[in-house]
Amino acid sequence: MSIIEFSNKELWPELLPGWVWLCGAGPGDPGLLTLHALNGLKQADVVVYDALVDKKILEWSPQAKLIYAGKRGGKPSIKQRDISLQLIELARNRKKVVRLKGGDPFVFGRGGEEAQTLVQSQIPLRIIPGISAGIGGLAYAGIPVTHRDVNQSVTFVTGHDQNGETPSTINWEAISNGSQVIVIYMGMRHIKTICSSLINCGRDPTEPVAIVTKATLPNQFVLETTLQHCVEDVAASDIKPPAIICIGKSVLMRQVLDWQSQLDGEKPRSTNPLNIKFPPESA
Amino acid sequence: MSIIEFSNKELWPELLPGWVWLCGAGPGDPGLLTLHALNGLKQADVVVYDALVDKKILEWSPQAKLIYAGKRGGKPSIKQRDISLQLIELARNRKKVVRLKGGDPFVFGRGGEEAQTLVQSQIPLRIIPGISAGIGGLAYAGIPVTHRDVNQSVTFVTGHDQNGETPSTINWEAISNGSQVIVIYMGMRHIKTICSSLINCGRDPTEPVAIVTKATLPNQFVLETTLQHCVEDVAASDIKPPAIICIGKSVLMRQVLDWQSQLDGEKPRSTNPLNIKFPPESA
Repeated sequence: MSIIEFSNKELWPELLPGWVWLCGAGPGDPGLLTLHALNGLKQADVVVYDALVDKKILEWSPQAKLIYAGKRGGKPSIKQRDISLQLIELARNRKKVVRLKGGDPFVFGRGGEEAQTLVQSQIPLRIIPGISAGIGGLAYAGIPVTHRDVNQSVTFVTGHDQNGETPSTINWEAISNGSQVIVIYMGMRHIKTICSSLINCGRDPTEPVAIVTKATLPNQFVLETTLQHCVEDVAASDIKPPAIICIGKSVLMRQVLDWQSQLDGEKPRSTNPLNIKFPPESA
Repeated sequence: MSIIEFSNKELWPELLPGWVWLCGAGPGDPGLLTLHALNGLKQADVVVYDALVDKKILEWSPQAKLIYAGKRGGKPSIKQRDISLQLIELARNRKKVVRLKGGDPFVFGRGGEEAQTLVQSQIPLRIIPGISAGIGGLAYAGIPVTHRDVNQSVTFVTGHDQNGETPSTINWEAISNGSQVIVIYMGMRHIKTICSSLINCGRDPTEPVAIVTKATLPNQFVLETTLQHCVEDVAASDIKPPAIICIGKSVLMRQVLDWQSQLDGEKPRSTNPLNIKFPPESA
């Protein structure tokens, strides 16, 4: 029994020869893939995939040729232009192409550039969003990026620019004043600068910080620290990029919402980590 | 032929009696549901769903009792506390419960509160992130929330608090200075205040704004305007909440990336709306 009739072309789009579907693969756990992305994988001739895409997801496209196009911070790797040109060539050769990117293509994923190049080359495309690690990865760590008692805004920042530097245009003071919760992608290399900038902008040095690696995967690891101890705690750990950094009181919610540890039988460390006097769900 | 063997319990978690799976349903298009959420729907005895969850998604759970728990801004509706208590009662009655929320439960969805109440009542739970409308809905409108030539940070804000007011704690000046792109959830009621605040903070009055309603659905509608003309253009339109508001130059990318109109045969209005001199994908 088929659970979803992808063969019903009225409901499920057909990936046609010469088309590219630009898909997000989500943060890691294959179960976080979308149905549209799975439908694409089932039809693809070619899957051009990134470093952070889980192997099990690729197994759902057994008929496709798999092309690795991973780029990793700081290492010599395939240039963005070469990836875009390869997608164009595959489409012009009438392939059914799935371009599978980690997370969401439009959240620090350079999906906009790839899509623009395809349109400029008159390659028809479809865009399939994915779950971004800065939201879904933190959810697996028990950290809500928004929580009514903590924040009405959240800022997502990239920790380095195309040269591997901390982007010089980032106004840490404004971000710090604007959002009680800050989520940083690709920030490990410049974590010292980031933490000291935020403390210098007036953020409480004891403010909680979580660093999540292998987000949503069985070997997910979460380091809980504070702004002032972050650098030394990272140095004393085995944490390696890529990682998602979350700064703000939402991190405390992990004490009650670390559902992954609770799956393993652990008790919550606290049931009211923000010390809310009245039930938060009363309104 | 089954495309995904959800019956394989080593790979796919079992929704057990007395458990609650807190799932995001995504922004609207049923194809943006995750595999984990679908697996939950296939096993549920009861699905407690929100206003913005598409009917087709609920059809994937034909065996379940469907309970509506929608809350809509400004209208008298079910209180958050009642929803949480209902989930607890269902779980205590050994039901297999899927709690299905629009978008992502942890992005202005009050999922943290629901999950906390469940943990406090010792109800075992699993959290399944969904695609948030502020990312996926804008992607369907051809707007990347991050784009290397535009922004290294993006801020997501809620436009009203629990009393329906613009949250008084929002520091619009800091948000405006911190993020070149701002995405506002539930902001329609206070759009005048928001636009004038941003102009007063120094944002260019001609800065592009997009307002997306029915995001990702067949009747999706996108209003393109500017900060200075936003209020009058909204008044002249048929737009009703809920809507996602995006402010920033990323909105211009819609001129090249409006892939949904291109599916219908429309040509892109521009192939280089940001007037980048060199190919953006050269690095």
